[in-house]
Amino acid sequence: MARVTGTGEEMYALVERMYPLCRSITGDGVRATLDIVGEYIPLQRHEVPTGTQVLDWTVPQEWNIRDAYVADATGRRVVDFAASSLHVLGYSVPVARTMPLSELREHLHTLPEHPTWIPYRTSYYRPDWGFCLAQETLDALPDGDYEVRIDSTLADGHLSYAEHVVPGQVSDEVIVSSHVCHPSLANDNLAGIAVATYLARALAEGTPYYTYRFLFAPGTIGAITWLARNAERVERVRHGLVLACAGDSGQLTYKRSRRGDAGIDRVMRHVLDASGRPHRVTEFTPYGYDERQFCSPGFDLGVGSLSRTPYAGYPEYHTSADDLGFVSPEAMEDTLAVCREAFSVLDRDRAYVNLSPYGEPQLGRRGLYDALGGRSDAKEAQMAMLWVLSLSDGEHGLLDVAERSGLPFATVAAAADALHGAGLIKA
Amino acid sequence: MARVTGTGEEMYALVERMYPLCRSITGDGVRATLDIVGEYIPLQRHEVPTGTQVLDWTVPQEWNIRDAYVADATGRRVVDFAASSLHVLGYSVPVARTMPLSELREHLHTLPEHPTWIPYRTSYYRPDWGFCLAQETLDALPDGDYEVRIDSTLADGHLSYAEHVVPGQVSDEVIVSSHVCHPSLANDNLAGIAVATYLARALAEGTPYYTYRFLFAPGTIGAITWLARNAERVERVRHGLVLACAGDSGQLTYKRSRRGDAGIDRVMRHVLDASGRPHRVTEFTPYGYDERQFCSPGFDLGVGSLSRTPYAGYPEYHTSADDLGFVSPEAMEDTLAVCREAFSVLDRDRAYVNLSPYGEPQLGRRGLYDALGGRSDAKEAQMAMLWVLSLSDGEHGLLDVAERSGLPFATVAAAADALHGAGLIKA
Amino acid sequence: MARVTGTGEEMYALVERMYPLCRSITGDGVRATLDIVGEYIPLQRHEVPTGTQVLDWTVPQEWNIRDAYVADATGRRVVDFAASSLHVLGYSVPVARTMPLSELREHLHTLPEHPTWIPYRTSYYRPDWGFCLAQETLDALPDGDYEVRIDSTLADGHLSYAEHVVPGQVSDEVIVSSHVCHPSLANDNLAGIAVATYLARALAEGTPYYTYRFLFAPGTIGAITWLARNAERVERVRHGLVLACAGDSGQLTYKRSRRGDAGIDRVMRHVLDASGRPHRVTEFTPYGYDERQFCSPGFDLGVGSLSRTPYAGYPEYHTSADDLGFVSPEAMEDTLAVCREAFSVLDRDRAYVNLSPYGEPQLGRRGLYDALGGRSDAKEAQMAMLWVLSLSDGEHGLLDVAERSGLPFATVAAAADALHGAGLIKA
Repeated sequence: MARVTGTGEEMYALVERMYPLCRSITGDGVRATLDIVGEYIPLQRHEVPTGTQVLDWTVPQEWNIRDAYVADATGRRVVDFAASSLHVLGYSVPVARTMPLSELREHLHTLPEHPTWIPYRTSYYRPDWGFCLAQETLDALPDGDYEVRIDSTLADGHLSYAEHVVPGQVSDEVIVSSHVCHPSLANDNLAGIAVATYLARALAEGTPYYTYRFLFAPGTIGAITWLARNAERVERVRHGLVLACAGDSGQLTYKRSRRGDAGIDRVMRHVLDASGRPHRVTEFTPYGYDERQFCSPGFDLGVGSLSRTPYAGYPEYHTSADDLGFVSPEAMEDTLAVCREAFSVLDRDRAYVNLSPYGEPQLGRRGLYDALGGRSDAKEAQMAMLWVLSLSDGEHGLLDVAERSGLPFATVAAAADALHGAGLIKA
Repeated sequence: MARVTGTGEEMYALVERMYPLCRSITGDGVRATLDIVGEYIPLQRHEVPTGTQVLDWTVPQEWNIRDAYVADATGRRVVDFAASSLHVLGYSVPVARTMPLSELREHLHTLPEHPTWIPYRTSYYRPDWGFCLAQETLDALPDGDYEVRIDSTLADGHLSYAEHVVPGQVSDEVIVSSHVCHPSLANDNLAGIAVATYLARALAEGTPYYTYRFLFAPGTIGAITWLARNAERVERVRHGLVLACAGDSGQLTYKRSRRGDAGIDRVMRHVLDASGRPHRVTEFTPYGYDERQFCSPGFDLGVGSLSRTPYAGYPEYHTSADDLGFVSPEAMEDTLAVCREAFSVLDRDRAYVNLSPYGEPQLGRRGLYDALGGRSDAKEAQMAMLWVLSLSDGEHGLLDVAERSGLPFATVAAAADALHGAGLIKA
Repeated sequence: MARVTGTGEEMYALVERMYPLCRSITGDGVRATLDIVGEYIPLQRHEVPTGTQVLDWTVPQEWNIRDAYVADATGRRVVDFAASSLHVLGYSVPVARTMPLSELREHLHTLPEHPTWIPYRTSYYRPDWGFCLAQETLDALPDGDYEVRIDSTLADGHLSYAEHVVPGQVSDEVIVSSHVCHPSLANDNLAGIAVATYLARALAEGTPYYTYRFLFAPGTIGAITWLARNAERVERVRHGLVLACAGDSGQLTYKRSRRGDAGIDRVMRHVLDASGRPHRVTEFTPYGYDERQFCSPGFDLGVGSLSRTPYAGYPEYHTSADDLGFVSPEAMEDTLAVCREAFSVLDRDRAYVNLSPYGEPQLGRRGLYDALGGRSDAKEAQMAMLWVLSLSDGEHGLLDVAERSGLPFATVAAAADALHGAGLIKA
């Protein structure tokens, strides 16, 4: 098990290790990725057989690929999977043929507006094959015949995912989900995986109130598989966060849950506002990452999504330009810091009941109040106690107190601890 | 029956035909007006006897007028009903006298601030007589005796109104009401009558969801009479619109129902906003047209009011300057277009229930989703399907979906149709 | 009983009479203050013994002081209670010693940032003694021994407070509370006491709807004592107002109740807005005056607080600079006028039920409506009647009608009276 230090450099090193692997929604690339993460935090691994019914879906065949290329008449590989896992259309069926460029063209995907970038494309649910390449590479290809070879296997197998649990004081859960199905794309989503990994390690340093469950699974089908297999556990999910695009240089973006005012929505907005960071909070849309599944109307979980530049919000998105230079240790560390702060608030935000609600209790005789009267500079800690007492009617939590009073959440939480210690409030 | 084409020119021609008639809250002018409308759409006519109790009111005596004038010593008619139906105070009792100008003055109504315009005045519920004339006409009258003659009848008779019904798929009703009691005033309310008439014809081209009931009745007492005689039908009214001042050159103004957030309020605001037209949406006030009656607190129906320049909002209001030049085919056509669009939304706005609410249903295998993954330009139609699935929890209608998603209502409705066809949602 | 005229000069004269007295939370200074107020309005006096349990508190020993000074070696009193009641730390235990300045310093309180002002300090619940003095006085004291003498008594006795009731038509109560525990501070709170006194006199000129209870009690412990001894009466409190800092030259400030939307909150905001005065409306905080107790979550009464410059909002606050020159007759008269206006609205704000809610009732035949139709300048009084009829569904009060219609409250209330007289609405 690697040493816990939680720095951006360590997260960046983890991203570097995972980057070359060819991931998809199934296959050995996912398993290799989970092997690496498992060196940092213990993982419970799951293998779900092809054909398993999961909600409205069916676990597809497993896809593995060993080699793929397009070679010209001289045998030179003009497009080569070994150079980048993006070069092959995800879930391409096996091919071994020679064909003229005119016929090959129908299987080639480029980005004319970014002629040096390789696009990322897949065809999970319709049998197809193809290559993705830079427009300028394509433009340089002379007419003529090309050898086309994709050495892949599409066969019954398994869908792989993993969980890591940080046990809490209660069995109510917070889930943190990161998709592990994208090939060599650094921000989407190796950075999210790395931040989730180090967030899990940070939480394990204490004993949180909630039980925190980290989910590393392929997008869409992985989340659906987890939801299908964990109906009872879903009942215990109180909050959740999808982590994606967590390492680019853009400002943080929190996307609300479908509910719009779930606990995580209020906490993330508060923490981002209070942090003074430039940031965006956007409304829910039924598109993006696995919040789509967690927030589907039958589940309607309080799960939001944290990114830096969000889904499809940058030109490099789903292209080879989302590479190791596109993410940085500093950005991942910043994302991690906000997650830690948010979960600290989420974990302490509770509604108390004032046990002495008729008039103010006499704080002075309990040692909770300055004895000298007349001064007008009431201290922040005393104000926090008065606010907690005032709003602790079982309906307002500590975050409500912090927001209504304008006091820092930590000050409010400390006041609640003091009042709880004095027997003046109960949880 | 006239041909259905729905152009502004046809509506304008209808206004021209009705313009010369002397309408009031009862009498042959109303009947003649309904005769004309009846040439365009079939009408169910009603005659309610004088003395009938209707809610807090009583149907008054019927008023009819054949001739009226003020003549000078030479016999010249200086004020002549034949020239304008506005010249006589509505519901004037019969008069046949000669009197000096000084005595006559107490029965003369003018608009000093607009010396060439004739005001419109009535005295329905207090026996009185009078003439309305231009201030400059009055100023030119020399002192002396004048022959005053009003050949009117105020006697037991009937109050007349008419209904036209476009049958729908359900018996729930939408009512569209236009007052027919004003004499030669083009915008108030011949334009409203004309737009209502052509709206009825347009609706009849399809089979709407709701049953649409068009009411052509005198203001206040007519609406009260209809409400008093249709207690059971009122229970089925889901939405309604009062059409008045529908033909001037001003921008469209929608006045909300008393509820403020009734279905029609949301639809009209949405359609006006989405149309890009400059427009106003104003709050309910208990003054104006027959929304006063429909929205009285005992009924509190979801009935708003659509005008161009609203009630009392233009200097020409209730004067002879509200003439055939004050309204235009273009303005009426624009009002009609918004009504049609609004009723199209109202008619399709329904809450569906997602039958596959746990996770996203797999749209791809149903042919509803692009097979090629990885691209970030999700099409509008696919987004609309995801939004409908996300919000179809029985609480949100398609208008909610359109507003929350920012997608056009028509796109959302088409997505709902596709999902309904695939058995993924039910109404 | 003094003559009722209610002018600012009379209130100022009352403030002048009370100013020299040394008040505290108990003792003869409070009693003498209540004696003076009792000359203006009849008071019900209460004496609660030391040791009485009141909610979470205990009535403390009674404190009285006859003399106190610090004298230098020559016998000259360098700090003298006779010169200002502020010179002694409130609730100082008796002292009679000679000590060097170095030792005395620990018992001296000054305001270095305002070197000519004497601060106001107390130590009610921790036995202590001390002197408050100007920084410049302290700076001028040479080292050496000083005679220190505080001729006070801290002994079992009573806590004193008083009530005045203006009987209303119903037993539901409005409470007006002013703290009487501060020594020679004019704005805090002799101005509040004076405005409360003249407000009581003004209310007694009519027969208000509510019963108005005025409370003159020491801050915190006095309000807590009243609440503890009046559990049944508290049930009848519908609204309340704490009056403090009512006489300075600043603009009026209304601080909302904890509920934030209680009747008094809405009324004060409306009256202040409608008055055109510059003013502030601030949110509740659990700090300040006795709204802290009335709004504690167990009681959660609809009690706000009216001040000019609010609690701790001016440099002179709790210093000798809050003197007779800091308050003015004009400011107190202005505060009184707003209180009278607000209580006039509060007293008349009631929800009526329209007894003719189906359609508009025919106002004309009841003499409530202009007979001449067609004119577009509906009078304000008629509009007010239509608004009252429209909103009188038992859920909206007259203040709602005023706010939604934009009409003056007095016009709306007069319309309600007319409709009530005609039997069209009931309370």
